[in-house]
Amino acid sequence: RINGQRLWDSLMELAQIGATEKGGVKRLTLTDLDRQGRDLIVRWAEQAGMSVTVDKIGNVFMRRAGRDNSLPPIVTGSHIDTQPTGGKFDGNYGVLAGLEVVRTLNEHGIATEAPIEVAFWTNEEGSRFVPVMMGSGVFCGAFSLETAYAAKDVDGKTVREELERIGYLGEEEPGQHPIGAYFETHIEQGPVLEDADKVIGVVPAVMGLSWYDCIVSGMEAHAGPTPMGLRRDALQVATTIMQETVAIANRYPPYGRGTVGMVQVFPNSRNVIPGQVKFSIDLRNVNEELLNTMHEEMLAFVAKTRAETGLGIEVERVSYYPPCPFHPDCVNAVRAATDKLGYSTMDVVSGAGHDAIYTARVAPSGMIFVPCKDGISHNEIEDAQPAHLEAGCNVLLHAMLERARV
Amino acid sequence: RINGQRLWDSLMELAQIGATEKGGVKRLTLTDLDRQGRDLIVRWAEQAGMSVTVDKIGNVFMRRAGRDNSLPPIVTGSHIDTQPTGGKFDGNYGVLAGLEVVRTLNEHGIATEAPIEVAFWTNEEGSRFVPVMMGSGVFCGAFSLETAYAAKDVDGKTVREELERIGYLGEEEPGQHPIGAYFETHIEQGPVLEDADKVIGVVPAVMGLSWYDCIVSGMEAHAGPTPMGLRRDALQVATTIMQETVAIANRYPPYGRGTVGMVQVFPNSRNVIPGQVKFSIDLRNVNEELLNTMHEEMLAFVAKTRAETGLGIEVERVSYYPPCPFHPDCVNAVRAATDKLGYSTMDVVSGAGHDAIYTARVAPSGMIFVPCKDGISHNEIEDAQPAHLEAGCNVLLHAMLERARV
Ligand SMILES: NC(=O)NCCC(=O)O
Ligand SMILES: NC(=O)NCCC(=O)O
Repeated sequence: RINGQRLWDSLMELAQIGATEKGGVKRLTLTDLDRQGRDLIVRWAEQAGMSVTVDKIGNVFMRRAGRDNSLPPIVTGSHIDTQPTGGKFDGNYGVLAGLEVVRTLNEHGIATEAPIEVAFWTNEEGSRFVPVMMGSGVFCGAFSLETAYAAKDVDGKTVREELERIGYLGEEEPGQHPIGAYFETHIEQGPVLEDADKVIGVVPAVMGLSWYDCIVSGMEAHAGPTPMGLRRDALQVATTIMQETVAIANRYPPYGRGTVGMVQVFPNSRNVIPGQVKFSIDLRNVNEELLNTMHEEMLAFVAKTRAETGLGIEVERVSYYPPCPFHPDCVNAVRAATDKLGYSTMDVVSGAGHDAIYTARVAPSGMIFVPCKDGISHNEIEDAQPAHLEAGCNVLLHAMLERARV
Repeated sequence: RINGQRLWDSLMELAQIGATEKGGVKRLTLTDLDRQGRDLIVRWAEQAGMSVTVDKIGNVFMRRAGRDNSLPPIVTGSHIDTQPTGGKFDGNYGVLAGLEVVRTLNEHGIATEAPIEVAFWTNEEGSRFVPVMMGSGVFCGAFSLETAYAAKDVDGKTVREELERIGYLGEEEPGQHPIGAYFETHIEQGPVLEDADKVIGVVPAVMGLSWYDCIVSGMEAHAGPTPMGLRRDALQVATTIMQETVAIANRYPPYGRGTVGMVQVFPNSRNVIPGQVKFSIDLRNVNEELLNTMHEEMLAFVAKTRAETGLGIEVERVSYYPPCPFHPDCVNAVRAATDKLGYSTMDVVSGAGHDAIYTARVAPSGMIFVPCKDGISHNEIEDAQPAHLEAGCNVLLHAMLERARV
């Protein structure tokens, strides 16, 4: 069993780097604060006797040797970058749980057949640079190193120059690093476990995701003198598409999701009929066919609305990844470890994307979820119970030992 | 008849002060540019032999003496401040049409019984300081001089200090200035005249206006892991109120208006269910009873939505003025002048607020509308035809002469 207090203390120490007044963390990827966080973890890993490799996109692999180092390592990890108004647990928990597994093995003098590694992936959040899940995406070949290097933040700084600046532009070719199996522990970022009062979520799959930018163009005009019948009100048309986004998701329960999170209205003045509205659409489903159906229904609704209203409506897909079922060996290892340890459990399909969906393209992968308070994440008030974090880490320990063989 | 070319040339010269690249004007109230605009018009007035009075809120009255100067003056005017992305005609036309009337009278050596005055009112637009229509509002007692003085722009500068800085903090007590009758020429700022192919709009009344701020509060949560049934999506609830705003207006044709022009979504991130949405509601009608009914229906819909969804919904009225019917003497003077001059004409209820609704509280008032291109105003591409501007100014000349008596 791992040491829950030590895990908690490490989480709290890491959370001081970029701590916000409201108790959250702001540690955007490839900033000076990210460097401080990375340096701290690398120091801890070295203190635990691990060797460290950095690849060309700044992914860091920290290795505890096995008895047979020709075997591919059993890897765990996540990310330590945060949202601008992020919490202490999202990502950070997965990395420090891995470190705690190694510390526990060291403490008990347990050797594994295969090496064990803890990884942290660059820019999972995608808040500063897109694409999201950048390090693991480059690693598995979802997009190229050049694409990632060229990504710019709002100030025009590129990923490559920022990696170099903070000293994490490594030598290893991304994807060259062998992985025998990959496990990722993470807070659920949703309310399902808490609602069902379960401690461990076994994650059979991650939902596929389809992101769109939608622009509705009407005609800007004065709110007073323009008769209702002569208006081309972009907002009124946009709201029907916003509502349809949710209606589509509701037609495909239980794993359909539809969200409009971002809206910009032009010129955004009280007495001007909106001439243009830009907004985001986020559709998800765990079933690829249903996700495609949702996509088609959304496009059909847009086409119908365009025809009926005569307004300009553009919709562009800006991100997509298909649903990702995890490898039965990894899912079963998590389930077996949970049962052995006697924790209450249920299956939870992940609605959020994680680095594990990209590692799954190159190695058997699986995830372990623990509850977070009120299901809230990407928020400074994100919170989790020490006992739940400890339980998830124990499950990780046993699942990894099963794959790495003692 | 007035000199259309001289009117146009003056409009174009004034439009150079604060001219924008896109052909519009940005000359916010009480800025250095506003001072330059004011100085130019005062210089022109003095060249036309007029005397100038400034009151404590910076309203400027430029007087051409009559034969009997004990009679209250027949006044015309408007404003010269603009929106941040404003045009060349909104307000400016009304002031320069007044000046052109005086120049024409001078040229033909015509004396009037009552004095004639041209006024420009401070801060009609309300873009830099609220309340909107500030100078005329203080003049008629709609709100106090102290309220107006204390208004701050985004940099914290007050109306009083800015009036002083640009040299337009006058001595006269607002409202002390006598007005025998008030006429205001203005571009329509709507598409009705152009649609009907008429040159002159006789304005029987201005719609009443009711402005609200609405805040819907739900719960911010991650767009992926949060099941549809457990969401408290502030945007989805807000969109129903946005749609109802328009539906209410559509229930009260032809003079019901309903607009949502301004929307802010929090935290406004693609994969976060909106936790809060703030938006504006603008309701108008020319009939006070119907405007009240619209107000009640909006509040009832909000109450019903609050009860049905359980989300927090606050709605606060932030501005109100009742419908303003103009004085039959002034409306008839405009109609008679138009008929005499043989211009095509129709009645157009003003959907926009104007300084004339405040002068109407202290003196018989009326307005003259001319078409503007595509009905567009509050936009740098605002445009109007020289022939229409000339026609409106001729109507003004004759309406004023009828009231001032030759
Ligand atoms: N875990 C996480 O928030 N990933 C970002 C992509 C998503 O919205 O699922
Ligand atoms: N003329 C004008 O735009 N007035 C501002 C108030 C309104 O929205 O009607």
